[in-house]
Amino acid sequence: MKALIKKRRNELKEGLREEFSQLGNRLGREAVLVSLALEADPSSEVYRNSIKKKGESLGVRVKLMEGNREDLRRLNRDPGIDGIIIHCRRENFLEYSSLISPEKDVEGITPLNLGRLVRGEDGPRPATPLAVMEILKVLNFPLEGKMAVIVGRSIIVGKPLIFLLLAENATVATAHSRTKPLERLTSQADLLVVAAGRPHLIKPSMVKEGAVVVDVGINVVDGKITGDVDPQVKEKALLTPVPGGVGTFTPLMLFSNLALLLRRKLEGKTSHNSD
Amino acid sequence: MKALIKKRRNELKEGLREEFSQLGNRLGREAVLVSLALEADPSSEVYRNSIKKKGESLGVRVKLMEGNREDLRRLNRDPGIDGIIIHCRRENFLEYSSLISPEKDVEGITPLNLGRLVRGEDGPRPATPLAVMEILKVLNFPLEGKMAVIVGRSIIVGKPLIFLLLAENATVATAHSRTKPLERLTSQADLLVVAAGRPHLIKPSMVKEGAVVVDVGINVVDGKITGDVDPQVKEKALLTPVPGGVGTFTPLMLFSNLALLLRRKLEGKTSHNSD
Repeated sequence: MKALIKKRRNELKEGLREEFSQLGNRLGREAVLVSLALEADPSSEVYRNSIKKKGESLGVRVKLMEGNREDLRRLNRDPGIDGIIIHCRRENFLEYSSLISPEKDVEGITPLNLGRLVRGEDGPRPATPLAVMEILKVLNFPLEGKMAVIVGRSIIVGKPLIFLLLAENATVATAHSRTKPLERLTSQADLLVVAAGRPHLIKPSMVKEGAVVVDVGINVVDGKITGDVDPQVKEKALLTPVPGGVGTFTPLMLFSNLALLLRRKLEGKTSHNSD
Repeated sequence: MKALIKKRRNELKEGLREEFSQLGNRLGREAVLVSLALEADPSSEVYRNSIKKKGESLGVRVKLMEGNREDLRRLNRDPGIDGIIIHCRRENFLEYSSLISPEKDVEGITPLNLGRLVRGEDGPRPATPLAVMEILKVLNFPLEGKMAVIVGRSIIVGKPLIFLLLAENATVATAHSRTKPLERLTSQADLLVVAAGRPHLIKPSMVKEGAVVVDVGINVVDGKITGDVDPQVKEKALLTPVPGGVGTFTPLMLFSNLALLLRRKLEGKTSHNSD
């Protein structure tokens, strides 16, 4: 599976590189993405630097900035800025993310863009759910009529993923910390997507023989990155690796959203339909 | 159950009457809701007239109008109009509904308001899912940890209901026309909500003994209104009636949303957070 994932990643990168080159020609400049830290958070430094590097390999200029909500408003209005990612403490995420202009929302997390997702309308989508869909393409897994179970109901992963899976005609169930017993549901899943943030939550006994299990978890245990799924699940199901699975695609999806927003901008479409 | 539903309906009506009286004092006029027909549709006449009558019994002036999208834009801007419901052909619903100002969206169906629902933020909600939640209150049905299955995935019922049920800590599964066999999922439901638009789709064999079954269907068969659930389901489950069940609350929820939007307006809050 790792070879197929790498192959798909390279195809996506190649496609995005070409697209940003063409978009750059139409814009008369490189595409610009701002990574704005609204609060000092050393733990996000590694992530921000990796986005910068990824962007530069795709022909996108990534500016790392620090600022407050006034700076965010200024970036929203600045025609030289094409996309914005914010970094802040979890408890401020809802408030700050609602301040991003939907036209620059490369994470697909603003109220307007999440609402368009519910309505099945075009727009940027949260990056991790898009990365899950890429993994399913790599595995050539047809979703129609399948029982998909999502463990986790966050705004950036579990909830938006419901709609991407329903759009492919899967039957979709969402489980969470109050779902008891969890295995009653997970053991019925043809597709199990785990985004609970709890290391090795899913054990082999909780998984159906022959299922596809997509592990979205990124936990650090004893200095090692581990997923939400016990690796022994591999004995009975097709399990995506951590690292090297969903995370391979997630940052690329930010740039895929950026390309979408730029195409719309150049076509003169906005996502504000109401007065 | 019918007596409890009527009691709750009367309480809601009484509460709304008082609230609109107070809101009217603060506004210096009656609250005004426009029912705008964007396309001639004689089948919506009965519904529109019932909304008008309901509004007037609550102290809300309901204007029945016909018009085009320019009229809709004008109503969005008109400070004398507090809420707007549109009526149009199903194939135009997505487009027209996205034109409604989120501040006047008493059906909770605009992209911004649906996105706020996904994010768990305050705002108007689609009326039928709210009516389902009222029924569950009447039945005093605690949702925490329960398995809830929704049959149907429309933008106005099935999809928004997912979030209202998740917010109450239910485990939530969405089934639809491609879910086969449907009974495998429905027979596990502690709460089964059926909004499929197919008369008597749900048979007794598909329902768990002792479940709560909420029938959202309103179908006309041989000139008689029937639900999506076979009435024989009553033998083994608590089944809400059609008519006299969810539909008792649905129009009231439009006015409950109108009251919410008016309170916000008077507090000077808007639902536009971004520039």
